[in-house]
Amino acid sequence: MPRIERRAEVVWEGNVARGRGLLTSGSNAFSELPLTLATRIGAPEGHTSPEELVASAHAGCYAMSLTNELVRLGRTPERVEVSATCVMDEVGDRHLVVASQLEVRASVGEIDDETFLAAVSEADTGCPISALIRASAEVRIDASLV
Amino acid sequence: MPRIERRAEVVWEGNVARGRGLLTSGSNAFSELPLTLATRIGAPEGHTSPEELVASAHAGCYAMSLTNELVRLGRTPERVEVSATCVMDEVGDRHLVVASQLEVRASVGEIDDETFLAAVSEADTGCPISALIRASAEVRIDASLV
Repeated sequence: MPRIERRAEVVWEGNVARGRGLLTSGSNAFSELPLTLATRIGAPEGHTSPEELVASAHAGCYAMSLTNELVRLGRTPERVEVSATCVMDEVGDRHLVVASQLEVRASVGEIDDETFLAAVSEADTGCPISALIRASAEVRIDASLV
Repeated sequence: MPRIERRAEVVWEGNVARGRGLLTSGSNAFSELPLTLATRIGAPEGHTSPEELVASAHAGCYAMSLTNELVRLGRTPERVEVSATCVMDEVGDRHLVVASQLEVRASVGEIDDETFLAAVSEADTGCPISALIRASAEVRIDASLV
């Protein structure tokens, strides 16, 4: 892949506790999505959050990385479902992303468990977002063939 | 902040080069957003990507962190605009997130440049997504009062 640059903007009005931000992506895939501290910490009430966006990035990147590995191994990925759960927690006096848990369910033509699990591991190694998270947090993967 | 867990799912059909994924966030703030390798690497054509989602997470997290710091300093944040650009590049034989560049423009009641720049720096230190990115990449911040 070549060098990629992607942009997003948040316009925040008011203070942190009662104000809100509106998030717009450079591609316009989403525009003016509300962000608030209350829905970041408590119930989301239909609002996204930095943690949900990291989970989205990880799920998307890993899905591409896994289908890439399966093709490299000569297999046919039919359908791959990847859910990511991003966990943020207090560490000392800071708040940090501490883990991302991937749940992977894949339908793949003519593959055995051993080959599949090798692809799962290689996909993690090759996934730039896994590498980003693993530099300071834990990446866990639970994968199965369906 | 308490422990936060947020989830997203991608369902990918087909191979990496010609297939596509549909991204849905746990909050349902966005649902079935298409992801493809071609629009990740080339022109976005209205599609988001892992890099754009990381930029979104960083812009949102930093905006909250900066308004939080300004309030701690007794200042009134009126409007804060944060754009983030996530850069992914080849490093040796891998692809990695190598940088996130923040552009910050803030309207703040009764503040001098020195106090503002101290808040900008503290906000970076306190921002969990800055910490995540800085563990393996560069975070650059260009901030100004407007």
